[in-house]
Amino acid sequence: MQEDLIKELPAGSQELNEKLQWRYATKKFDAAKKVPQAKIERILEAVRLTPTSSGLQPFELILITNDEIRQRIREVAWGQAQITDCSHLLVFAAWDDITPDRVHMMFDLTNDIRGFKNEGWENYRQQLLKIVADRGQEANYQAAARQAYIALGTALIAAAFEEVDCTPMEGFDPKAVDEILDLGNRNLRSVILLPLGYRAEEGDWLVELKKVRRSRLDLVTEIH
Amino acid sequence: MQEDLIKELPAGSQELNEKLQWRYATKKFDAAKKVPQAKIERILEAVRLTPTSSGLQPFELILITNDEIRQRIREVAWGQAQITDCSHLLVFAAWDDITPDRVHMMFDLTNDIRGFKNEGWENYRQQLLKIVADRGQEANYQAAARQAYIALGTALIAAAFEEVDCTPMEGFDPKAVDEILDLGNRNLRSVILLPLGYRAEEGDWLVELKKVRRSRLDLVTEIH
Repeated sequence: MQEDLIKELPAGSQELNEKLQWRYATKKFDAAKKVPQAKIERILEAVRLTPTSSGLQPFELILITNDEIRQRIREVAWGQAQITDCSHLLVFAAWDDITPDRVHMMFDLTNDIRGFKNEGWENYRQQLLKIVADRGQEANYQAAARQAYIALGTALIAAAFEEVDCTPMEGFDPKAVDEILDLGNRNLRSVILLPLGYRAEEGDWLVELKKVRRSRLDLVTEIH
Repeated sequence: MQEDLIKELPAGSQELNEKLQWRYATKKFDAAKKVPQAKIERILEAVRLTPTSSGLQPFELILITNDEIRQRIREVAWGQAQITDCSHLLVFAAWDDITPDRVHMMFDLTNDIRGFKNEGWENYRQQLLKIVADRGQEANYQAAARQAYIALGTALIAAAFEEVDCTPMEGFDPKAVDEILDLGNRNLRSVILLPLGYRAEEGDWLVELKKVRRSRLDLVTEIH
Protein backbone atom coordinates (compact mmCIF):
# COMPACT_ATOMS: atom_id res chain seq x y z
CA MET A 1 0.00 0.00 0.00
CA GLN A 2 2.81 2.38 0.85
CA GLU A 3 4.42 1.67 -2.54
CA ASP A 4 1.16 2.59 -4.23
CA LEU A 5 1.13 5.86 -2.34
CA ILE A 6 4.70 6.60 -3.35
CA LYS A 7 3.80 6.22 -7.02
CA GLU A 8 0.55 8.20 -6.72
CA LEU A 9 2.04 11.67 -7.17
CA PRO A 10 4.32 12.49 -10.09
CA ALA A 11 7.74 14.17 -9.85
CA GLY A 12 8.66 15.52 -6.41
CA SER A 13 11.35 13.44 -4.77
CA GLN A 14 10.69 10.41 -6.96
CA GLU A 15 13.58 11.52 -9.15
CA LEU A 16 15.72 11.92 -6.04
CA ASN A 17 14.86 8.41 -4.94
CA GLU A 18 15.83 7.07 -8.37
CA LYS A 19 19.21 8.78 -7.99
CA LEU A 20 19.61 7.24 -4.53
CA GLN A 21 18.81 3.82 -6.04
CA TRP A 22 21.37 4.41 -8.79
CA ARG A 23 24.27 5.34 -6.55
CA TYR A 24 26.42 2.81 -4.65
CA ALA A 25 29.75 2.81 -2.82
CA THR A 26 32.01 2.43 -5.83
CA LYS A 27 34.72 -0.17 -5.21
CA LYS A 28 36.74 0.34 -8.40
CA PHE A 29 37.16 3.58 -10.29
CA ASP A 30 38.35 4.01 -13.87
CA ALA A 31 41.56 5.98 -13.26
CA ALA A 32 41.53 7.31 -16.84
CA LYS A 33 38.17 9.09 -16.56
CA LYS A 34 38.08 12.60 -15.13
CA VAL A 35 35.01 14.40 -13.86
CA PRO A 36 34.38 17.65 -15.79
CA GLN A 37 35.06 20.75 -13.72
CA ALA A 38 31.48 22.00 -14.14
CA LYS A 39 30.16 18.90 -12.38
CA ILE A 40 32.68 19.30 -9.56
CA GLU A 41 31.63 22.93 -9.18
CA ARG A 42 27.96 22.04 -8.90
CA ILE A 43 28.66 19.34 -6.31
CA LEU A 44 30.71 21.85 -4.29
CA GLU A 45 27.91 24.39 -4.64
CA ALA A 46 25.39 21.88 -3.27
CA VAL A 47 27.66 21.25 -0.28
CA ARG A 48 28.08 24.99 0.18
CA LEU A 49 24.30 25.43 0.29
CA THR A 50 23.81 22.65 2.86
CA PRO A 51 22.03 23.90 5.97
CA THR A 52 23.88 23.56 9.28
CA SER A 53 23.11 24.17 12.92
CA SER A 54 22.95 27.92 13.64
CA GLY A 55 24.22 28.40 10.09
CA LEU A 56 27.81 27.89 11.26
CA GLN A 57 29.00 25.64 8.40
CA PRO A 58 31.63 24.34 10.85
CA PHE A 59 33.77 22.52 8.31
CA GLU A 60 35.94 22.99 5.25
CA LEU A 61 36.53 20.92 2.14
CA ILE A 62 39.87 19.93 0.65
CA LEU A 63 39.66 19.00 -3.04
CA ILE A 64 42.65 16.95 -4.15
CA THR A 65 43.82 15.77 -7.56
CA ASN A 66 47.55 15.74 -6.70
CA ASP A 67 48.84 12.19 -7.13
CA GLU A 68 51.55 12.27 -4.48
CA ILE A 69 49.25 13.56 -1.77
CA ARG A 70 46.60 11.00 -2.69
CA GLN A 71 49.19 8.23 -2.55
CA ARG A 72 50.20 9.31 0.95
CA ILE A 73 46.58 9.40 2.08
CA ARG A 74 45.97 5.97 0.59
CA GLU A 75 48.80 4.60 2.72
CA VAL A 76 47.00 5.66 5.91
CA ALA A 77 43.62 4.47 4.63
CA TRP A 78 44.08 0.70 4.44
CA GLY A 79 45.54 1.06 0.96
CA GLN A 80 42.10 1.64 -0.55
CA ALA A 81 42.67 2.09 -4.27
CA GLN A 82 39.70 4.41 -4.81
CA ILE A 83 41.73 7.21 -3.22
CA THR A 84 44.29 7.20 -6.04
CA ASP A 85 42.07 5.84 -8.84
CA CYS A 86 39.30 8.40 -8.48
CA SER A 87 39.17 11.65 -10.42
CA HIS A 88 38.91 14.04 -7.44
CA LEU A 89 39.31 13.25 -3.75
CA LEU A 90 37.13 15.40 -1.49
CA VAL A 91 38.08 15.56 2.20
CA PHE A 92 35.54 16.84 4.72
CA ALA A 93 37.38 18.49 7.64
CA ALA A 94 35.44 19.69 10.69
CA TRP A 95 36.41 22.60 12.91
CA ASP A 96 38.42 21.20 15.83
CA ASP A 97 36.56 23.63 18.10
CA ILE A 98 33.78 26.20 17.79
CA THR A 99 35.69 29.22 19.04
CA PRO A 100 34.29 32.72 19.72
CA ASP A 101 36.23 33.95 16.65
CA ARG A 102 34.47 31.41 14.45
CA VAL A 103 31.03 32.24 15.88
CA HIS A 104 31.69 35.95 15.32
CA MET A 105 32.89 35.28 11.76
CA MET A 106 29.54 33.67 10.83
CA PHE A 107 27.33 36.13 12.72
CA ASP A 108 29.23 39.08 11.23
CA LEU A 109 28.96 37.54 7.75
CA THR A 110 25.21 37.21 8.30
CA ASN A 111 24.92 40.88 9.19
CA ASP A 112 27.09 41.81 6.18
CA ILE A 113 25.02 39.78 3.70
CA ARG A 114 21.66 40.85 5.11
CA GLY A 115 22.75 44.45 5.46
CA PHE A 116 21.43 45.03 8.98
CA LYS A 117 21.83 44.05 12.64
CA ASN A 118 18.91 42.32 14.29
CA GLU A 119 18.45 42.36 18.07
CA GLY A 120 17.14 38.78 18.20
CA TRP A 121 20.09 37.56 16.14
CA GLU A 122 22.56 39.46 18.36
CA ASN A 123 20.97 37.92 21.47
CA TYR A 124 21.29 34.51 19.86
CA ARG A 125 24.97 35.22 19.15
CA GLN A 126 25.54 35.75 22.90
CA GLN A 127 23.56 32.59 23.78
CA LEU A 128 25.56 30.53 21.32
CA LEU A 129 28.89 31.94 22.57
CA LYS A 130 27.90 30.78 26.05
CA ILE A 131 26.79 27.33 24.82
CA VAL A 132 30.06 26.62 23.00
CA ALA A 133 32.18 27.97 25.86
CA ASP A 134 30.33 25.73 28.37
CA ARG A 135 30.48 22.69 26.11
CA GLY A 136 34.26 22.66 25.62
CA GLN A 137 36.52 21.80 22.70
CA GLU A 138 35.91 18.07 22.24
CA ALA A 139 32.10 18.36 22.35
CA ASN A 140 32.28 21.32 19.98
CA TYR A 141 34.36 19.27 17.58
CA GLN A 142 31.86 16.39 17.78
CA ALA A 143 29.02 18.82 17.07
CA ALA A 144 30.96 20.26 14.11
CA ALA A 145 31.68 16.77 12.76
CA ARG A 146 27.95 15.95 12.77
CA GLN A 147 27.30 19.00 10.59
CA ALA A 148 29.92 17.76 8.12
CA TYR A 149 27.80 14.61 7.78
CA ILE A 150 24.78 16.66 6.70
CA ALA A 151 27.04 18.04 3.98
CA LEU A 152 28.14 14.51 3.13
CA GLY A 153 24.47 13.58 2.64
CA THR A 154 24.16 16.47 0.20
CA ALA A 155 27.38 15.58 -1.64
CA LEU A 156 26.28 11.96 -2.16
CA ILE A 157 23.03 13.17 -3.71
CA ALA A 158 24.67 15.91 -5.78
CA ALA A 159 27.16 13.42 -7.20
CA ALA A 160 24.30 11.08 -8.13
CA PHE A 161 22.48 13.89 -9.93
CA GLU A 162 25.69 14.50 -11.89
CA GLU A 163 25.98 10.76 -12.62
CA VAL A 164 29.31 10.89 -10.84
CA ASP A 165 30.26 7.86 -8.76
CA CYS A 166 31.60 8.18 -5.24
CA THR A 167 32.51 6.24 -2.09
CA PRO A 168 32.18 7.74 1.36
CA MET A 169 35.04 6.50 3.54
CA GLU A 170 35.55 6.57 7.29
CA GLY A 171 38.25 3.89 7.14
CA PHE A 172 41.41 5.98 7.50
CA ASP A 173 43.69 7.31 10.22
CA PRO A 174 42.36 10.85 10.78
CA LYS A 175 45.45 12.07 12.64
CA ALA A 176 47.71 10.90 9.81
CA VAL A 177 45.50 12.58 7.20
CA ASP A 178 45.48 15.76 9.29
CA GLU A 179 49.28 15.72 9.20
CA ILE A 180 49.50 15.09 5.48
CA LEU A 181 47.15 18.00 4.80
CA ASP A 182 48.49 20.18 7.62
CA LEU A 183 44.96 20.50 8.99
CA GLY A 184 46.05 20.90 12.62
CA ASN A 185 47.57 24.29 11.85
CA ARG A 186 44.23 25.32 10.38
CA ASN A 187 42.36 24.01 13.44
CA LEU A 188 40.59 21.38 11.36
CA ARG A 189 40.21 17.60 11.73
CA SER A 190 39.51 15.25 8.84
CA VAL A 191 36.27 13.30 9.24
CA ILE A 192 35.31 11.81 5.85
CA LEU A 193 37.02 11.03 2.55
CA LEU A 194 34.87 11.09 -0.58
CA PRO A 195 36.54 9.87 -3.79
CA LEU A 196 34.61 11.13 -6.85
CA GLY A 197 34.97 9.66 -10.31
CA TYR A 198 33.63 7.03 -12.67
CA ARG A 199 33.19 3.33 -11.99
CA ALA A 200 35.51 0.96 -13.82
CA GLU A 201 33.85 -1.26 -16.41
CA GLU A 202 35.26 -4.35 -14.75
CA GLY A 203 36.45 -5.41 -11.33
CA ASP A 204 33.89 -3.75 -9.04
CA TRP A 205 32.52 -6.54 -6.82
CA LEU A 206 29.67 -4.42 -5.46
CA VAL A 207 28.17 -2.87 -8.59
CA GLU A 208 25.98 -5.83 -9.53
CA LEU A 209 24.83 -6.70 -6.01
CA LYS A 210 21.41 -5.72 -4.67
CA LYS A 211 21.17 -2.63 -2.52
CA VAL A 212 20.43 -3.61 1.08
CA ARG A 213 18.23 -1.44 3.29
CA ARG A 214 16.01 -2.18 6.23
CA SER A 215 12.28 -2.06 5.48
CA ARG A 216 10.21 1.02 6.16
CA LEU A 217 8.43 -0.91 8.91
CA ASP A 218 11.72 -1.66 10.65
CA LEU A 219 12.96 1.89 10.29
CA VAL A 220 9.90 4.01 11.11
CA THR A 221 7.59 4.04 14.13
CA GLU A 222 4.44 6.14 13.88
CA ILE A 223 2.61 7.89 16.70
CA HIS A 224 -0.78 9.25 15.63
CA MET B 1 34.35 32.08 -13.72
CA GLN B 2 33.17 29.32 -11.46
CA GLU B 3 29.61 30.55 -11.87
CA ASP B 4 29.99 30.36 -15.63
CA LEU B 5 31.23 26.80 -15.27
CA ILE B 6 28.26 25.89 -13.08
CA LYS B 7 25.86 27.10 -15.77
CA GLU B 8 27.78 25.49 -18.60
CA LEU B 9 26.19 22.04 -18.38
CA PRO B 10 22.42 21.66 -18.31
CA ALA B 11 20.45 19.65 -15.76
CA GLY B 12 22.53 17.55 -13.36
CA SER B 13 22.49 18.88 -9.84
CA GLN B 14 21.45 22.37 -10.94
CA GLU B 15 17.88 21.43 -10.03
CA LEU B 16 19.11 20.14 -6.68
CA ASN B 17 20.88 23.42 -6.05
CA GLU B 18 17.70 25.34 -6.86
CA LYS B 19 15.86 23.23 -4.28
CA LEU B 20 18.59 23.96 -1.74
CA GLN B 21 18.21 27.67 -2.49
CA TRP B 22 14.44 27.41 -2.04
CA ARG B 23 14.48 25.71 1.35
CA TYR B 24 15.04 27.54 4.64
CA ALA B 25 14.62 26.77 8.33
CA THR B 26 10.90 27.53 8.60
CA LYS B 27 10.15 29.61 11.67
CA LYS B 28 6.33 29.59 11.45
CA PHE B 29 4.21 26.79 10.07
CA ASP B 30 0.57 27.01 8.98
CA ALA B 31 -0.99 24.60 11.49
CA ALA B 32 -4.02 24.06 9.25
CA LYS B 33 -2.06 22.65 6.30
CA LYS B 34 -1.22 18.94 6.27
CA VAL B 35 1.39 17.25 4.10
CA PRO B 36 -0.18 14.57 1.85
CA GLN B 37 0.75 11.05 2.88
CA ALA B 38 2.37 10.30 -0.50
CA LYS B 39 4.87 13.10 0.05
CA ILE B 40 5.66 11.85 3.55
CA GLU B 41 6.19 8.36 2.13
CA ARG B 42 8.63 9.57 -0.50
CA ILE B 43 10.60 11.57 2.08
CA LEU B 44 10.79 8.48 4.31
CA GLU B 45 11.84 6.40 1.32
CA ALA B 46 14.68 8.82 0.56
CA VAL B 47 15.86 8.56 4.16
CA ARG B 48 15.60 4.78 3.98
CA LEU B 49 17.81 4.75 0.87
CA THR B 50 20.46 6.96 2.48
CA PRO B 51 23.88 5.30 2.49
CA THR B 52 25.52 4.73 5.88
CA SER B 53 28.85 3.45 7.14
CA SER B 54 29.11 -0.33 6.62
CA GLY B 55 25.44 -0.20 5.59
CA LEU B 56 24.38 -0.33 9.24
CA GLN B 57 21.63 2.34 9.11
CA PRO B 58 22.25 2.78 12.84
CA PHE B 59 19.14 4.87 13.56
CA GLU B 60 15.37 4.80 13.54
CA LEU B 61 12.75 7.40 12.75
CA ILE B 62 9.72 8.31 14.84
CA LEU B 63 6.94 10.01 12.85
CA ILE B 64 4.55 11.90 15.09
CA THR B 65 1.26 13.63 14.42
CA ASN B 66 -0.20 13.06 17.90
CA ASP B 67 -0.91 16.49 19.45
CA GLU B 68 -0.35 15.57 23.10
CA ILE B 69 3.05 13.99 22.43
CA ARG B 70 4.11 16.94 20.32
CA GLN B 71 3.03 19.35 23.07
CA ARG B 72 5.15 17.45 25.58
CA ILE B 73 8.16 17.51 23.24
CA ARG B 74 7.67 21.24 22.66
CA GLU B 75 7.90 21.81 26.41
CA VAL B 76 11.41 20.30 26.49
CA ALA B 77 12.46 22.10 23.29
CA TRP B 78 12.49 25.75 24.35
CA GLY B 79 8.76 25.97 23.55
CA GLN B 80 9.48 26.10 19.82
CA ALA B 81 6.07 26.38 18.15
CA GLN B 82 7.08 24.56 14.95
CA ILE B 83 6.88 21.28 16.88
CA THR B 84 3.14 21.60 17.42
CA ASP B 85 2.30 23.76 14.36
CA CYS B 86 3.91 21.48 11.79
CA SER B 87 2.07 18.74 9.95
CA HIS B 88 4.36 15.83 10.87
CA LEU B 89 7.20 15.77 13.38
CA LEU B 90 10.05 13.47 12.40
CA VAL B 91 12.47 12.42 15.16
CA PHE B 92 15.85 10.93 14.23
CA ALA B 93 16.98 8.52 16.95
CA ALA B 94 20.42 6.93 16.81
CA TRP B 95 21.34 3.52 18.21
CA ASP B 96 22.69 4.06 21.74
CA ASP B 97 25.33 1.43 20.97
CA ILE B 98 26.41 -0.71 18.02
CA THR B 99 25.98 -4.10 19.61
CA PRO B 100 26.95 -7.49 18.11
CA ASP B 101 23.20 -8.24 17.74
CA ARG B 102 22.73 -5.15 15.64
CA VAL B 103 25.78 -5.87 13.49
CA HIS B 104 24.56 -9.43 12.91
CA MET B 105 21.06 -8.16 12.07
CA MET B 106 22.42 -6.02 9.20
CA PHE B 107 24.94 -8.56 7.92
CA ASP B 108 22.31 -11.32 8.02
CA LEU B 109 19.83 -9.07 6.22
CA THR B 110 22.48 -8.45 3.56
CA ASN B 111 22.95 -12.18 3.04
CA ASP B 112 19.16 -12.68 2.94
CA ILE B 113 18.59 -9.97 0.35
CA ARG B 114 21.55 -10.93 -1.84
CA GLY B 115 20.80 -14.63 -1.51
CA PHE B 116 24.35 -15.79 -0.79
CA LYS B 117 27.16 -15.63 1.74
CA ASN B 118 30.39 -13.99 0.65
CA GLU B 119 33.70 -14.75 2.35
CA GLY B 120 34.97 -11.18 2.12
CA TRP B 121 31.74 -9.89 3.61
CA GLU B 122 31.89 -12.45 6.45
CA ASN B 123 35.49 -11.45 7.20
CA TYR B 124 34.38 -7.85 7.29
CA ARG B 125 31.61 -8.79 9.75
CA GLN B 126 34.25 -10.15 12.13
CA GLN B 127 36.44 -7.06 11.69
CA LEU B 128 33.52 -4.74 12.40
CA LEU B 129 32.48 -6.74 15.48
CA LYS B 130 35.99 -6.22 16.83
CA ILE B 131 36.00 -2.50 15.97
CA VAL B 132 32.72 -1.78 17.77
CA ALA B 133 33.69 -3.92 20.78
CA ASP B 134 37.01 -2.06 21.13
CA ARG B 135 35.43 1.33 20.63
CA GLY B 136 32.86 1.08 23.41
CA GLN B 137 29.29 2.25 23.84
CA GLU B 138 29.66 6.04 23.86
CA ALA B 139 31.93 6.16 20.79
CA ASN B 140 29.58 3.75 19.02
CA TYR B 141 26.66 6.02 19.82
CA GLN B 142 28.59 9.04 18.50
CA ALA B 143 29.39 7.15 15.30
CA ALA B 144 25.71 6.16 14.96
CA ALA B 145 24.58 9.74 15.53
CA ARG B 146 26.84 10.94 12.68
CA GLN B 147 25.11 8.51 10.33
CA ALA B 148 21.75 9.96 11.34
CA TYR B 149 23.04 13.31 10.11
CA ILE B 150 23.67 11.88 6.63
CA ALA B 151 20.02 10.86 6.68
CA LEU B 152 19.08 14.35 7.84
CA GLY B 153 20.89 15.74 4.81
CA THR B 154 18.79 13.49 2.61
CA ALA B 155 15.54 14.40 4.40
CA LEU B 156 16.15 18.13 3.98
CA ILE B 157 16.64 17.65 0.24
CA ALA B 158 13.72 15.24 -0.15
CA ALA B 159 11.41 17.68 1.61
CA ALA B 160 12.56 20.46 -0.71
CA PHE B 161 11.85 18.30 -3.77
CA GLU B 162 8.33 17.76 -2.38
CA GLU B 163 7.98 21.52 -1.75
CA VAL B 164 7.49 20.67 1.89
CA ASP B 165 8.96 23.06 4.44
CA CYS B 166 11.00 21.86 7.38
CA THR B 167 13.22 23.00 10.25
CA PRO B 168 16.05 20.83 11.55
CA MET B 169 16.30 21.27 15.33
CA GLU B 170 19.03 20.38 17.79
CA GLY B 171 17.66 22.72 20.45
CA PHE B 172 15.90 20.26 22.75
CA ASP B 173 16.63 18.15 25.82
CA PRO B 174 17.46 14.75 24.32
CA LYS B 175 17.04 12.84 27.58
CA ALA B 176 13.58 14.32 28.11
CA VAL B 177 12.56 13.47 24.53
CA ASP B 178 13.93 9.95 25.01
CA GLU B 179 11.67 9.59 28.04
CA ILE B 180 8.58 10.95 26.31
CA LEU B 181 9.08 8.52 23.41
CA ASP B 182 10.36 5.66 25.61
CA LEU B 183 13.48 5.46 23.43
CA GLY B 184 15.72 4.19 26.22
CA ASN B 185 13.85 0.90 26.32
CA ARG B 186 14.49 0.56 22.59
CA ASN B 187 18.19 1.41 23.03
CA LEU B 188 17.82 4.58 21.00
CA ARG B 189 18.75 8.21 21.68
CA SER B 190 17.06 11.19 20.03
CA VAL B 191 19.46 13.35 18.02
CA ILE B 192 17.45 15.61 15.71
CA LEU B 193 13.86 16.87 15.44
CA LEU B 194 12.57 17.70 11.97
CA PRO B 195 9.14 19.37 11.82
CA LEU B 196 7.64 19.00 8.32
CA GLY B 197 4.77 21.12 7.02
CA TYR B 198 3.96 24.32 5.19
CA ARG B 199 5.16 27.81 5.98
CA ALA B 200 2.58 30.25 7.36
CA GLU B 201 1.70 33.13 5.06
CA GLU B 202 2.55 35.63 7.77
CA GLY B 203 4.76 35.82 10.85
CA ASP B 204 7.91 34.03 9.68
CA TRP B 205 10.81 36.41 10.37
CA LEU B 206 13.32 34.38 8.34
CA VAL B 207 11.46 33.70 5.09
CA GLU B 208 12.29 37.02 3.40
CA LEU B 209 15.91 37.25 4.58
CA LYS B 210 18.86 36.41 2.36
CA LYS B 211 20.41 32.97 2.71
CA VAL B 212 23.87 33.23 4.27
CA ARG B 213 26.67 30.92 3.25
CA ARG B 214 30.44 31.24 3.22
CA SER B 215 31.95 31.69 -0.24
CA ARG B 216 33.35 28.77 -2.18
CA LEU B 217 36.82 30.28 -1.71
CA ASP B 218 36.41 30.28 2.06
CA LEU B 219 35.02 26.77 2.13
CA VAL B 220 37.21 24.88 -0.35
CA THR B 221 40.99 24.47 -0.57
CA GLU B 222 42.37 22.82 -3.71
CA ILE B 223 45.52 20.72 -4.01
CA HIS B 224 46.45 20.01 -7.62
